[in-house]
Amino acid sequence: MEIKVLQDILSANEALARNNRKLLDANGILAINIMSSPGAGKTSLILKTINKLKGKAQIAVIEGDVASTIDADKVQKAGIPVVQINTEGGCHLEANMISKALSSLSLKDTDLLLIENVGNLICPAGFALGEHKKVMLLSLPEGDDKPHKYPAMFTQADVVVLNKIDLRSLVDFDVAAFHQAVTGVNIKAKIFEISCKSGEGLEEWLSWLNDELALIRAKARK
Amino acid sequence: MEIKVLQDILSANEALARNNRKLLDANGILAINIMSSPGAGKTSLILKTINKLKGKAQIAVIEGDVASTIDADKVQKAGIPVVQINTEGGCHLEANMISKALSSLSLKDTDLLLIENVGNLICPAGFALGEHKKVMLLSLPEGDDKPHKYPAMFTQADVVVLNKIDLRSLVDFDVAAFHQAVTGVNIKAKIFEISCKSGEGLEEWLSWLNDELALIRAKARK
Repeated sequence: MEIKVLQDILSANEALARNNRKLLDANGILAINIMSSPGAGKTSLILKTINKLKGKAQIAVIEGDVASTIDADKVQKAGIPVVQINTEGGCHLEANMISKALSSLSLKDTDLLLIENVGNLICPAGFALGEHKKVMLLSLPEGDDKPHKYPAMFTQADVVVLNKIDLRSLVDFDVAAFHQAVTGVNIKAKIFEISCKSGEGLEEWLSWLNDELALIRAKARK
Repeated sequence: MEIKVLQDILSANEALARNNRKLLDANGILAINIMSSPGAGKTSLILKTINKLKGKAQIAVIEGDVASTIDADKVQKAGIPVVQINTEGGCHLEANMISKALSSLSLKDTDLLLIENVGNLICPAGFALGEHKKVMLLSLPEGDDKPHKYPAMFTQADVVVLNKIDLRSLVDFDVAAFHQAVTGVNIKAKIFEISCKSGEGLEEWLSWLNDELALIRAKARK
């Protein structure tokens, strides 16, 4: 009985996610779902990406948080259209929330939609939003054992970004063991090592993002 | 309809939590529910506490994780009875899981039960386990804005432990602003600043724990 209810929720979410995806594709928008623990650096990655791609791509942001507009305020200060979703206790974004947010963004003026999910390494994995790519962010101070402890999130990620790499000499984190652990659950995931603070490694991330943007644009032209 | 189901789940959990509490009280056991984001240092705090209190108190540990026995293995190596609960996707511990774990521990040989919840800053807040105290752990790299963004967890905490304080000169974290933010949502919470790595600040934490142990023992003697 309990499982049946969950299946119903998921299929309703899947249907809404597919609608979102169609709307995004029709407008040639690349949508990225960024997921991580609280404080791993999702907003910092978004702000760095805005800073580097401003003028080259039209960016919009959807911010998901249990409460507050702290992150949306930072994005707005960067001069980028942003919608804040407050889940009021909910531990993940869902496709219906994204659907509502899309209706309040100017889609024809958007190339790249960055969606910051609620800070949580478990629940967001179960809910498609209609995104093209799932990006899983982990920060060095969280520890290299996380792919073993939170396998669902790492299994689904298209890209794993390892942030706060500038702290590598100060915290216990075995980067090689982490790569092995990620590859063990997800052979296809790309892994980028970055520091949003120092800027280290951001070029590879931006290069990947630009390639994905080019693909979406090429498809939209057909 | 959806809200009704949630209320049913919570009241069933509350009833089971009350049973756990009675069983703990009857055996003079202090139970602490330790909650945090992934990688904030719950296991490190438990291992440090074991190291400092071994011989002075009889400790047992319940480890909650989505998957793996990584943390339980560490506790077992320290020579302490430990039960691993794998939630298999579940984002928090529930009272029925603790009830089962208690039945496999030797309660008459236990003074202090440390329960490590699933790494998650949202979901565990909604589920009582029967614990006497809720300890909320935050680590410096997560950022000082977390009480605003995850208010439920901070509102319910009896104790807030700020870990990885040894990184204070290396990460952007305003300790005074954090104290203000915690006090803003929870005037009664005690706040300890510690580093499980350097050992800094652990004495205050242990002193509080010893006081609580003395209270439970005094009650059990009556």
